[in-house]
Amino acid sequence: MMEHVVGIDIGGTKLATVVADSTGHILGKVRKPTLAEKGPEYALDLLFDMVRETVSLAGLEQASISAIGVSCGGPLDTKTGIVYSPPNLPGWDALPLKAKLESEFQVPVTIENDANASALAEFRFGGGQGYNAVLYMTMSTGIGGGIVLDGQIYHGANDSAGEVGHQILLPDGPRCGCGKRGCLEALCSGPAIARRAQAAIRKQLADEKASTTMLTFTDGHIADVKSEHVLEAARTGDTLALRLVEETAYYMGWGIANLVNVLNPDIVLLGTIAIAAGDLLLNPIRETVSKFAMTRPAAAVEIAPAQLGDTLGDLAAIALVV
Amino acid sequence: MMEHVVGIDIGGTKLATVVADSTGHILGKVRKPTLAEKGPEYALDLLFDMVRETVSLAGLEQASISAIGVSCGGPLDTKTGIVYSPPNLPGWDALPLKAKLESEFQVPVTIENDANASALAEFRFGGGQGYNAVLYMTMSTGIGGGIVLDGQIYHGANDSAGEVGHQILLPDGPRCGCGKRGCLEALCSGPAIARRAQAAIRKQLADEKASTTMLTFTDGHIADVKSEHVLEAARTGDTLALRLVEETAYYMGWGIANLVNVLNPDIVLLGTIAIAAGDLLLNPIRETVSKFAMTRPAAAVEIAPAQLGDTLGDLAAIALVV
Repeated sequence: MMEHVVGIDIGGTKLATVVADSTGHILGKVRKPTLAEKGPEYALDLLFDMVRETVSLAGLEQASISAIGVSCGGPLDTKTGIVYSPPNLPGWDALPLKAKLESEFQVPVTIENDANASALAEFRFGGGQGYNAVLYMTMSTGIGGGIVLDGQIYHGANDSAGEVGHQILLPDGPRCGCGKRGCLEALCSGPAIARRAQAAIRKQLADEKASTTMLTFTDGHIADVKSEHVLEAARTGDTLALRLVEETAYYMGWGIANLVNVLNPDIVLLGTIAIAAGDLLLNPIRETVSKFAMTRPAAAVEIAPAQLGDTLGDLAAIALVV
Repeated sequence: MMEHVVGIDIGGTKLATVVADSTGHILGKVRKPTLAEKGPEYALDLLFDMVRETVSLAGLEQASISAIGVSCGGPLDTKTGIVYSPPNLPGWDALPLKAKLESEFQVPVTIENDANASALAEFRFGGGQGYNAVLYMTMSTGIGGGIVLDGQIYHGANDSAGEVGHQILLPDGPRCGCGKRGCLEALCSGPAIARRAQAAIRKQLADEKASTTMLTFTDGHIADVKSEHVLEAARTGDTLALRLVEETAYYMGWGIANLVNVLNPDIVLLGTIAIAAGDLLLNPIRETVSKFAMTRPAAAVEIAPAQLGDTLGDLAAIALVV
């Protein structure tokens, strides 16, 4: 009998459970809102039901499930399986997630922070296939990262490796969600790009210069300008938007160059915003990396968009157990 | 019969050959000047003789040597054993060092860049013993680095991992030997500290402020002020020297914090200048790291002086083969 696995993707706004065969082929999926404000007990009960529902949807018996992989916001301890107060999951304080799932389903459970699990999924099923040293970087509401070396997630001393978004570039720069200043995340995450765009538009208006097409996407509301509007406007040749894209690429390229010098990766895979932006953003990032990194590691590295897109969350959880 | 190994330490100014038993205990050593200007053929012939002399000094037969480890300035390719034009070894261009030594001595030869070999030596015999994730950073004429994970040197895609000295902190900062600006090495290597000290002394004199005790070590010659004079003066409470130490610790701490976030090491071992300076430099470095790094990896990391001191070069070569 072929063995099957369950993947659980726990986010601050949605929960997803999937069932896959041992090759990672997904046979069934259930998605529900997390309703994070209801706390961990609610979410856990919901997840238990969702797992059973997904197994049944896939036409399987619970007994055919050999393992469960869980991708969840960190910080968490992969050895003990305890989750420590992820910012997007209020009340998940020292929650023994692995133990609770193992006791409920009587199968081995592997938990991993979402950025690491995503990096492994890109290695197993996406753009990282065949590479020995893979650096994956998210680029969405935050900038997370995961490092996969010789097919294994690199965890470091206490599961905190790969915090690439909190590399400090400008110690006097904008405040970051982590409390420090000038982290790469405070400059290049989606909200950070939006903040820089809004400030630049306000300044341009104050200087009584020509407006920007970015505002046409928001009915003129500056505070509604988001990173996707910057990209859209840049594609139509909007000068200010193009400058913001250049600036974003400069900071990303600088940060990636520093990582390339240290990790000497075969490939750097960039998610979400970089996937949406494509070469508009990736080309100037590549130029900055080749300018700022050492010649030898710069020559070895490929900088590419992540490949898994919408299936990433499902495959992240599955990659942990197939 | 107990097996023995040879270690070869190739520097720009001196060559050293040692013989050790399988526990790393050194039984004999020969040291000669590299005379780098004479080129690689001269140095190789000299090394062949030195190896034989060292084996004989140790009272052994050549036949009892089971392997040779070579620590050499990079860049080099550890797989092919070819050395590619190290800055301190003119003419060593695509030199097949491993092949030449293997053909001469008929034993397996392992070559490694000196920073990586030193990191491994610290892991095997020094301050890194017992740690899973060790980051070693030199702090002398340059800032090099080596990463040892689970007892193995981490090489990256093409043996360029660990270039921690070329992390760019100030893109408009002082020019680095690598051609870029504002690398950690351009701010905190021995010569970089000396340059900053000399500039600060000149400025202080131009401002007609009180002089500094740093000049008492150089008969008043500003251009002769070196990093060791900064440390000596700082120990006596010299205000300017203390400010230079603080500044050095700030840049080192900032750079190390970024590395701590990415690598999440158990320990960061700092060589040469940090060993000489001790807590005078290490304490403000630790403070900056705990301010600039994420809480979780900062809590996991120990920042300590490297342990091997004068024996480092010998043990670096030996660590590769025992």
